Amino acid sequence: MRTALVVGTGLIGTSAALALAGRGVVVHLTDHDPEQARTAAALGAGTDEAPTGPVDLAIVAAPPAHVAAALAGAMRDGVARGYLDVASVKGGPRRELESLGLDLSAYIGSHPMAGREKSGPLAATGDLFEGRPWVLTPTRDTDTEVLNLALELVSHCRAVPVVMDADAHDRAVALVSHMPHLVSSMVAARLENAEEAAVRLCGQGIRDVTRIAASDPRMWIDILSANPGPVADLLADVSADLDGTVRALRALQSSDETERRTGTTGIEDVLRRGNAGQIRVPGKHGTAPVTYESVVVLVDDQPGQLARIFADADRAGVNIEDVRIEHATGQQAGLVELVVRPSAAPVLTAALRERGWAIRQ
Amino acid sequence: MRTALVVGTGLIGTSAALALAGRGVVVHLTDHDPEQARTAAALGAGTDEAPTGPVDLAIVAAPPAHVAAALAGAMRDGVARGYLDVASVKGGPRRELESLGLDLSAYIGSHPMAGREKSGPLAATGDLFEGRPWVLTPTRDTDTEVLNLALELVSHCRAVPVVMDADAHDRAVALVSHMPHLVSSMVAARLENAEEAAVRLCGQGIRDVTRIAASDPRMWIDILSANPGPVADLLADVSADLDGTVRALRALQSSDETERRTGTTGIEDVLRRGNAGQIRVPGKHGTAPVTYESVVVLVDDQPGQLARIFADADRAGVNIEDVRIEHATGQQAGLVELVVRPSAAPVLTAALRERGWAIRQ
Repeated sequence: MRTALVVGTGLIGTSAALALAGRGVVVHLTDHDPEQARTAAALGAGTDEAPTGPVDLAIVAAPPAHVAAALAGAMRDGVARGYLDVASVKGGPRRELESLGLDLSAYIGSHPMAGREKSGPLAATGDLFEGRPWVLTPTRDTDTEVLNLALELVSHCRAVPVVMDADAHDRAVALVSHMPHLVSSMVAARLENAEEAAVRLCGQGIRDVTRIAASDPRMWIDILSANPGPVADLLADVSADLDGTVRALRALQSSDETERRTGTTGIEDVLRRGNAGQIRVPGKHGTAPVTYESVVVLVDDQPGQLARIFADADRAGVNIEDVRIEHATGQQAGLVELVVRPSAAPVLTAALRERGWAIRQ
Repeated sequence: MRTALVVGTGLIGTSAALALAGRGVVVHLTDHDPEQARTAAALGAGTDEAPTGPVDLAIVAAPPAHVAAALAGAMRDGVARGYLDVASVKGGPRRELESLGLDLSAYIGSHPMAGREKSGPLAATGDLFEGRPWVLTPTRDTDTEVLNLALELVSHCRAVPVVMDADAHDRAVALVSHMPHLVSSMVAARLENAEEAAVRLCGQGIRDVTRIAASDPRMWIDILSANPGPVADLLADVSADLDGTVRALRALQSSDETERRTGTTGIEDVLRRGNAGQIRVPGKHGTAPVTYESVVVLVDDQPGQLARIFADADRAGVNIEDVRIEHATGQQAGLVELVVRPSAAPVLTAALRERGWAIRQ
């Protein structure tokens, strides 16, 4: 790939452009708001001048509702050899393009699984996609040359290509992203009018479950509007589990021993299926879950403490995989949990103890 | 408080004993399994010899199902001036004691909001309760002297006392702990039989939502069995939201414009209520949420990198509030997200850039 056209210079479009420009590809930038394209160009993502002839790959990074129209326009103008979009839902845009009667051999759908809380070209970064899955949804009509252009883009962005059917992709993101998002919102919604005394008792569990409920509703309305069917099907499954669990809890209140046993079995069932599903969630390394161990250090909440812990871990030759800091309530002390490979845990514990750190058993 | 008796030397009982012993209180330890009491004594939590006369405070830390019987036994034997339990549910044990016709002026219910994944005396630590809320549920029958003994215990454990009505406590933990736990299990359960290709797309969102679904079902069956009513009521509320959301998603699939608008309104409603609830969850400092900013550094996944970052942050006088490490998939590079107070973000960014670190914009 020597030339590319990025249509829509928001976070995703500009980030891809930065990655391509960094690898020597000549990138042309366009946006319905020319100011945005100018900003992206000023960041080093390419030029906001139009190409003089067809480019190798046109990357359409417009908002979901405008993707099909933007792709159709670009294809009718013949601006590129290959056309790709990055919308977070894949079945709808494809069907819309088909209904327009376009030849889709030069088109490939895609979805990079990356994002941030911020949007627009100023939030863009060439390493946004690094190590993230980038789904490609070719059909048997897709030219091999176009698939290869898409793979080259993914490679330049240092992402991991995953080939899937468009509808399978939409069901997958409903499962791992859209359904959990709505459920998190529903748990958080219970706190809206809760008593302050109850809210004070919140711990790390509910904090984690409700974290994503803080997201921008407008963006999520767009995403969910493009994928309502698969999300509704999954929520209906959750609803069935929920109703069964309410029945099981009511049975636990019964004075009848057999009834109570049925209740216990129902609760155990949902907890065990939760165990079985949770263990499949890939760890941060993106592979099968590795078992890590934690070394917990008691610290004062002051500058320098973490630096000294990390320096001491470094001297012991231990690689820290993850860190969690737990501040104590209302006082300046806390716990630092260092997550390491099991073989490193005793080494780290001994090294930190030797240097005077208080380690939790 | 000069003397105490801990009945049940598991994680909670032994941790409280360690804290009391560390403050000079003479602690007697007993357990239905004498070996457990011996282990706790060997850890420095007290003596497993029986007291020769009544102690100041008896702390009953038996499993929920045995709490009332253990308390009743201790009270009939007159082993202490005051009696306290630490069971995670408070209404049931109190009613059980009342039904036994005991004088409850010397009794106070309590629930320290602390725990770990591990159990037993070997997992115990004197700082387990540090900074955590410790709920006390006195009634108007509770002697002031007994309330003060409980406050002294909480103070020795460096926890934060919160006085609540027993039933209000049970509704509160249903809200902030028991209901979210079951909902997390139900989201995770959807992954049990999901296709591998879909599971590969899991990101940080679903990882957070399902983390607590990994917990031990046996412990949670005990907890939920002691509090079925309030948990069922909350799940029924979630169920109503869920059904409304499924209807809204189905409406989004309609060909009728008015119908689709109704769907959008329904989705927006649940997302906005989620926003409103999530913002009430206290941050790690246990106070109203503070807005932090993130500085993201690109690193190699090798020992020493974190140590150098923290040392450089230290030199710049910046206190790191939290750290998140994101490893790239299948390669030895990753991102380190440093969470700092907003005023510190530009200072840290400049200091790290000066020292050659690659900072994400």
